[in-house]
Amino acid sequence: MLVFAQFGAGRIGAIHAANLAAGGAARLAHVVDVDAAAAAALAARHGAKVSDAATALADPAVGAVIIASSTDTHAALVIAAARAGKAIFCEKPIDLSLARVDEALAAVRTAGVPMLVGFNRRFDPSFAELHRRIQAGAIGAVEQVVITSRDPAPPPLGYVKVSGGLFRDMTIHDFDMARWLLGEEPVQVFAQGAALVDPAIAAAGDIDSAMVLLRTASGRMAHINNSRRAAYGYDQRVEVHGSLGRLIAGNRVATTVEQADAQAVSAEKPLHFFLERYAEAYRIELAAFIAAVTAGTPMPVGAEDGRQALVLADAALRSLSEGRPVAVSDCA
Amino acid sequence: MLVFAQFGAGRIGAIHAANLAAGGAARLAHVVDVDAAAAAALAARHGAKVSDAATALADPAVGAVIIASSTDTHAALVIAAARAGKAIFCEKPIDLSLARVDEALAAVRTAGVPMLVGFNRRFDPSFAELHRRIQAGAIGAVEQVVITSRDPAPPPLGYVKVSGGLFRDMTIHDFDMARWLLGEEPVQVFAQGAALVDPAIAAAGDIDSAMVLLRTASGRMAHINNSRRAAYGYDQRVEVHGSLGRLIAGNRVATTVEQADAQAVSAEKPLHFFLERYAEAYRIELAAFIAAVTAGTPMPVGAEDGRQALVLADAALRSLSEGRPVAVSDCA
Amino acid sequence: MLVFAQFGAGRIGAIHAANLAAGGAARLAHVVDVDAAAAAALAARHGAKVSDAATALADPAVGAVIIASSTDTHAALVIAAARAGKAIFCEKPIDLSLARVDEALAAVRTAGVPMLVGFNRRFDPSFAELHRRIQAGAIGAVEQVVITSRDPAPPPLGYVKVSGGLFRDMTIHDFDMARWLLGEEPVQVFAQGAALVDPAIAAAGDIDSAMVLLRTASGRMAHINNSRRAAYGYDQRVEVHGSLGRLIAGNRVATTVEQADAQAVSAEKPLHFFLERYAEAYRIELAAFIAAVTAGTPMPVGAEDGRQALVLADAALRSLSEGRPVAVSDCA
Amino acid sequence: MLVFAQFGAGRIGAIHAANLAAGGAARLAHVVDVDAAAAAALAARHGAKVSDAATALADPAVGAVIIASSTDTHAALVIAAARAGKAIFCEKPIDLSLARVDEALAAVRTAGVPMLVGFNRRFDPSFAELHRRIQAGAIGAVEQVVITSRDPAPPPLGYVKVSGGLFRDMTIHDFDMARWLLGEEPVQVFAQGAALVDPAIAAAGDIDSAMVLLRTASGRMAHINNSRRAAYGYDQRVEVHGSLGRLIAGNRVATTVEQADAQAVSAEKPLHFFLERYAEAYRIELAAFIAAVTAGTPMPVGAEDGRQALVLADAALRSLSEGRPVAVSDCA
Repeated sequence: MLVFAQFGAGRIGAIHAANLAAGGAARLAHVVDVDAAAAAALAARHGAKVSDAATALADPAVGAVIIASSTDTHAALVIAAARAGKAIFCEKPIDLSLARVDEALAAVRTAGVPMLVGFNRRFDPSFAELHRRIQAGAIGAVEQVVITSRDPAPPPLGYVKVSGGLFRDMTIHDFDMARWLLGEEPVQVFAQGAALVDPAIAAAGDIDSAMVLLRTASGRMAHINNSRRAAYGYDQRVEVHGSLGRLIAGNRVATTVEQADAQAVSAEKPLHFFLERYAEAYRIELAAFIAAVTAGTPMPVGAEDGRQALVLADAALRSLSEGRPVAVSDCA
Repeated sequence: MLVFAQFGAGRIGAIHAANLAAGGAARLAHVVDVDAAAAAALAARHGAKVSDAATALADPAVGAVIIASSTDTHAALVIAAARAGKAIFCEKPIDLSLARVDEALAAVRTAGVPMLVGFNRRFDPSFAELHRRIQAGAIGAVEQVVITSRDPAPPPLGYVKVSGGLFRDMTIHDFDMARWLLGEEPVQVFAQGAALVDPAIAAAGDIDSAMVLLRTASGRMAHINNSRRAAYGYDQRVEVHGSLGRLIAGNRVATTVEQADAQAVSAEKPLHFFLERYAEAYRIELAAFIAAVTAGTPMPVGAEDGRQALVLADAALRSLSEGRPVAVSDCA
Repeated sequence: MLVFAQFGAGRIGAIHAANLAAGGAARLAHVVDVDAAAAAALAARHGAKVSDAATALADPAVGAVIIASSTDTHAALVIAAARAGKAIFCEKPIDLSLARVDEALAAVRTAGVPMLVGFNRRFDPSFAELHRRIQAGAIGAVEQVVITSRDPAPPPLGYVKVSGGLFRDMTIHDFDMARWLLGEEPVQVFAQGAALVDPAIAAAGDIDSAMVLLRTASGRMAHINNSRRAAYGYDQRVEVHGSLGRLIAGNRVATTVEQADAQAVSAEKPLHFFLERYAEAYRIELAAFIAAVTAGTPMPVGAEDGRQALVLADAALRSLSEGRPVAVSDCA
Repeated sequence: MLVFAQFGAGRIGAIHAANLAAGGAARLAHVVDVDAAAAAALAARHGAKVSDAATALADPAVGAVIIASSTDTHAALVIAAARAGKAIFCEKPIDLSLARVDEALAAVRTAGVPMLVGFNRRFDPSFAELHRRIQAGAIGAVEQVVITSRDPAPPPLGYVKVSGGLFRDMTIHDFDMARWLLGEEPVQVFAQGAALVDPAIAAAGDIDSAMVLLRTASGRMAHINNSRRAAYGYDQRVEVHGSLGRLIAGNRVATTVEQADAQAVSAEKPLHFFLERYAEAYRIELAAFIAAVTAGTPMPVGAEDGRQALVLADAALRSLSEGRPVAVSDCA
């Protein structure tokens, strides 16, 4: 049974801890958080101890860590965990600075520890099945990918300011999805964006609406559209066109109820929030990490994937600010 | 924390025990099963003891029982649990004989213990939402109900022979659903049936395909169609027509993937088996039982509901054998 | 070019005349109607003459008649047209009295003229495709048929009183559909009904809501549900279950627009009225008649089909009044 | 009754002539085509004369012309028709050269004749309903538009060579759709493209797959994805995101039949070809032209719309060749 130390007892941390408890194949031993009350509550719920980082990493029983603390702590924790020889499950992004990411990845490589970066959407059953069918040849050679990714409502302005911007905070998931579905690395990024939802976001130097185009060396293309606000809920769809057909993975709903009345025929809105929409994805993701650590098999989403998505986000940001397509190699 | 003894360590028993463990509001103390190995395995998985029935019921710490053993043991266990003062969660049917059901219910009434009969479908999120909307007046006065309930494949012939027949074994869920959705008791049943799937089922004295009509005193109507086989999976749908509109609750699917190719535009088949389709329903059902016992509030599906569905099944059986509509009051 | 005389210049007559004009393979020569103004308007629109019945039928250029006048005139016109040697396209029902239908059919047989009875729904592209797939074996042997047939709103009470009742006026289409899809004649009918929509319909001796079960000799079954009112429009669906799968033909909509907003995800309501829903069916039906007359091939829906649907309606009426299932042979 | 002369008796010409005949509000008097046999056949079908252009335009009875001949003849015919004072219905594009388009539009302006450019998709009932809802405020302020436009199969290579390229031939419809739905003129175009379907198309100097981004002055954005091949048929969808919600208009199907079997639950593929998909749109478009000419009201799609879509196509082409976003004003 794999023993875990977990950094971060917030919203995402609580999910990982609960999944860890329910899974049966692992045990949570240490919870570390600057918020002592949150750490105590989470530790109590799962029979773990509240520890500081050094103590948790020094525990020889601990085989793996979950890093679900604030983004600015990720890289240091990755490095410390790597040096302590622990397997690493790190929430995205590893860091907002590519240089810092590279430091962390170097430590991981040196230590030879396995590391998974939390691109949870790859584990969503619908997206995973869509990817499986691409791999199985159901639509032939992939030619174009269209990703729709729209949040129900903007995050608090305080978060926006430290988020690294829309591309590094939100689109980064879509960049990972695009890479995964294209089956080939993008070589060029063109991005356009605006603050159409809230002028305060513009005032904070960020955008809330974006459209991006990616291109690979062989001419495959991807489009991403983003908004920080969707009146009808969380809109997360993927569409892939290949030489033999098309695959679509749509939104998920709480119930299949359809109502027909004098006004319309109406169905449920999409699940409203990422915690509901990706509840299964989080569970499967952690189980996949535990399985890979236990069996010594490769990570389904590696540290390098975390880096590459950030490179694309950086390229998008540069494209937006310079008003031109940017070669990915210029940002790597 | 409510402490449970559970009778039955088979397929359904394993589900209830797992839901109980994951729920956090209750604890499994005793597992009772004639199959000692199954009991031991389940008990071990959840930190419970293997006990015999008498020991389990004599334990004063035990506040509630789950009866998920074979149907022929239900009534005796209900009576014993009632006498021991335990809250009762009993899988449907209470018994195949109405007389025996009445004995059990008398014991429950005498003891004054709460009892839930396992009509799990009422807790399916889609059916529950549909029912909630009826109650909220979304479609006005209910007029007609159409229930589609088709299994993926017939059960083993050995099971068919002891099942009490299609109406008592399978349609009983639909009779409960019809009562619940009609909002008024059926007063007449007309049933027709045949063995269209497998002649061995006819040879065993049963049918595998049926269509039923129900009528209430005010003229509301319900239709049920059943088959023991659906090539595309488990088909569980409900449709309610009212004065202001229509509600439909459809099948559930594992993923939202849609594939368009030279042949067709195709979606996933319905979840194939009742354990998958009703996984959430089982979880919510047990939580509702625990909540009602703990709070002392009425059971969402009472013992009387178990009896009434059996009365309708008996009426359907008589209708089939006599080739005429049967008054429900003649079978009560 | 086939030359037509048409009896009836009302709503349905106007449709047939327009389809005849647009089709290009036939020409309307005579319009006959007791309403002289309606006859004159329709004749003018299509370059035809207003005639009386005798004149129209005496015209040797006329090869075929369309009978779209009021129901009580159908049988006499069929007999007269048959004696005049004209091919006959007759709206359903041929008559409300089976004895009168038999007189008319005898005249048709004696004259040896081709006759189509206007069960337009068989020509609806969706129902026709569903039937074609059954014939092609897509779902194996047919086992159960479910027909949903609900009008948007009740007809005027004056019409209800002369309509022959719900079963002969409305359900008759569904009886024909059931026969066609079952691929085997029903041998038993059980019907229940009530006036749930409008008590005035009950006062007029009719019902507005019904559920029917049919059974064939080999055990195939069909269910029909009817209402004279559907708040969301015209609800016309068919579902067929076979040994290898299921076919559904659903409602048609004016547009594919889907709106997602803070309330719901909503689609268009079904096309509201039979004239819109079955516009294509009427067109294809008349073209099929013309093609069959011209080529001398069998009618796609024969006179005998008109008779059989009426027999089922009569059986349903008797079932309703006697409260028991009725053998179809008792009403034939 | 408006009298027409029609230039072009090919595939599209035949559709317009048939719609004109069926509409009842206009009459075709002259058919002009270099293919004398095609002209004769079409003229005969609709009771028109075969004429040369000069004769047709000199006929004072002629009030309007349909220009459905090959693209290279459009501009000259527009000019001649304008000088003859005829109302003009011209298939898109007016010309592949903007200079030539401007000559034609100048002639139209000078003559003061009404002119409609054949962006038939605006008249598709689903796209028109979607647009109507935007205008009615159903989704608030428009923010992003996503247009999917994919042909079933590439045209013959001979056609590709004279087509003006993908952007001017195919995407031009989508540029018009984007302008119409954005409700604001695009000011910048970025395009990427490749020949992923057929290398012969690359050899001919064209592309068969493209992704485009448009931006307006206020920051609204549109994405277009194109392919010359879709294994499942003609894929024509539009999606508009606004401050209050989302509108989608999807593909159309021939029937509503859904088949569930051991493989999948499958629906019909989209209507395969533009002539089927846009049959209604062509009919409504011509009726709208006739109505506007007759009533003297503004054209629903004017000559300037034809020009603007071509400007966007030119900008896309320059963007593709120069690998950078292009200001629309540089191509106007």
